[in-house]
Amino acid sequence: MNNCPLPIIDYNKIQIGHGGGGKLTNQLIEKLFLPEFRNSFLETRHDGAVIDFGNLKLAFTTDSYVIRPIFFPGGNIGTLAVNGTVNDLAMCGAKPLYLSVGFILEEGFPLEALYQVVQSMGKAARFAHVEIVTGDTKVVDKGKGDGIFINTAGIGVVESGVEISPKRVVSGDVVLLSGDIGRHGIAIMAVREGLDFETEIESDCAPVSDLTLDLLEKGVEVHALRDLTRGGLATALLEIAETSSSQIRIEEEAVPVREEVQGACEILGLDPLYVANEGRFAVFLPENHAQRALEIFHSYPLGKDACAIGRVVSSGARGMVTAKSQLGTNRILDFLSGEQLPRIC
Amino acid sequence: MNNCPLPIIDYNKIQIGHGGGGKLTNQLIEKLFLPEFRNSFLETRHDGAVIDFGNLKLAFTTDSYVIRPIFFPGGNIGTLAVNGTVNDLAMCGAKPLYLSVGFILEEGFPLEALYQVVQSMGKAARFAHVEIVTGDTKVVDKGKGDGIFINTAGIGVVESGVEISPKRVVSGDVVLLSGDIGRHGIAIMAVREGLDFETEIESDCAPVSDLTLDLLEKGVEVHALRDLTRGGLATALLEIAETSSSQIRIEEEAVPVREEVQGACEILGLDPLYVANEGRFAVFLPENHAQRALEIFHSYPLGKDACAIGRVVSSGARGMVTAKSQLGTNRILDFLSGEQLPRIC
Repeated sequence: MNNCPLPIIDYNKIQIGHGGGGKLTNQLIEKLFLPEFRNSFLETRHDGAVIDFGNLKLAFTTDSYVIRPIFFPGGNIGTLAVNGTVNDLAMCGAKPLYLSVGFILEEGFPLEALYQVVQSMGKAARFAHVEIVTGDTKVVDKGKGDGIFINTAGIGVVESGVEISPKRVVSGDVVLLSGDIGRHGIAIMAVREGLDFETEIESDCAPVSDLTLDLLEKGVEVHALRDLTRGGLATALLEIAETSSSQIRIEEEAVPVREEVQGACEILGLDPLYVANEGRFAVFLPENHAQRALEIFHSYPLGKDACAIGRVVSSGARGMVTAKSQLGTNRILDFLSGEQLPRIC
Repeated sequence: MNNCPLPIIDYNKIQIGHGGGGKLTNQLIEKLFLPEFRNSFLETRHDGAVIDFGNLKLAFTTDSYVIRPIFFPGGNIGTLAVNGTVNDLAMCGAKPLYLSVGFILEEGFPLEALYQVVQSMGKAARFAHVEIVTGDTKVVDKGKGDGIFINTAGIGVVESGVEISPKRVVSGDVVLLSGDIGRHGIAIMAVREGLDFETEIESDCAPVSDLTLDLLEKGVEVHALRDLTRGGLATALLEIAETSSSQIRIEEEAVPVREEVQGACEILGLDPLYVANEGRFAVFLPENHAQRALEIFHSYPLGKDACAIGRVVSSGARGMVTAKSQLGTNRILDFLSGEQLPRIC
């Protein structure tokens, strides 16, 4: 049946880290998926595929959501499943339009909880101007799932003539960040660990497509967009650096992190640069477009804390990301082996 | 948070039957999903949504696959995940083009098995002329999943000008069946129950889009198509009868069932009309197109046993399906409460 030997991979069994978006996930993608599914769409290593249908350019993307706990301050697995896929479409420069939804439910899961999740999905879809047009429900026996897993796939239209892709990133590009980081990951961890903060930390889970579309409609030249989900800001920058063979330098001081998130990170031993977000993204664009872009960001509540955090300092080299600390020292950021927070999305 | 009370539903916890495609699944769809996601696409109750993009008509569909065991005679969960979604697109009259894939893996799942599944998906995709263009991998902790779950979503182009939809079914339509039924379900049950038949029963898992597209290209007027997956032929006919408010009468004798499948059904206490298939479908079409359609069917190995099994005897009534047995008696078919075979796809 299986004629080819298993490609050389560090482990012979799936590890939690294979789902973390870091080194192990990349190994799976590069050694297992790409060689078997090989096509030009997958090779762009983008958040979704952008497909030409004659005059029409569509973006197509998918994500499964396995987050624990399923309810958290600022949202639930349903909000996340809608916004996550909406945002992946937004990162392709697309206007999100249609979603599919696949539920995998565990026998015994309370209908009341399903109803809350479904209501949140309906609300999130209306808020993001998308329709859930097709779906599927499967049930697995008790002990063979974990309450509820949700997959969403999405279709959007790329209306601007511009190609948005990590490959377009060049030396001199400015890196903008859409707001403060780390709130989604910390909100989840606080619930998991039963931590009680003075101020409740809410997930930043939100759809960002109104903002990205406005940037494009107003003529801002955008080279690449990347949302800061699994693996956080650091992983997103590393992926862009690798795909575009460029070196990125950021100022850690410029990255907004709320005081309570910073405090929680210290207690939990986490690096905020690697903590997941669900409503935050980075923009790579030419310096002469940065000011205009920031003005647009600041006109949205979602983008009120947007700022420049660094730039692309060279291209055509091995991908690298360095962060200059408040003390003036530079550290080289690297992919985590797995994910500091499993099942965060 | 949740302002509306839970709609009245027979159970307050998810039952295995909620995933069976029968009465309980319909209750979830009608009472929970449709009211929250309401839009015209979902209301067609089709295998996928058909969406207009100016001149372009696209079909969009999704399914999750949670089958046990993941390897079976004639295929594995990967073959199924590709062919199942390809076939859902085919049932919309579409030419399948692009798939997304979402893996939910359980910690400890052997890489070797994943590799076999991924190889099968690549092979099945090439065989069905589709490309897997975007994907996602999540890992859940040991004991919180069941090895591997796969979601695929698919996009296809509807090239014919004709609308294919259960709503177009009218009195006088002939019902064609593409081949013998029950092999997929029995192949799975044989492995699960450790049954040993003289001849190994192989799943009928296959892509049917070449055949459906050929019917359309050759000008056969097709009113509706439906694949015979969860709940088998009976459930498919019942869904069409209900959506089109029509009464369907079939001759049980005309339905091809292989001898070994019939035998296994008797041993296992199953009704072949309700056993799942993964490469079989029914066509509803005007009587004067039936002969031409059967000629086309018979020119494909996949359609060599195709035959007429009944017709639509009235419309505008309450949906009903009756089967005339070999003894000449009529029985009324009804939705099963759940599924006689859980986790069959």
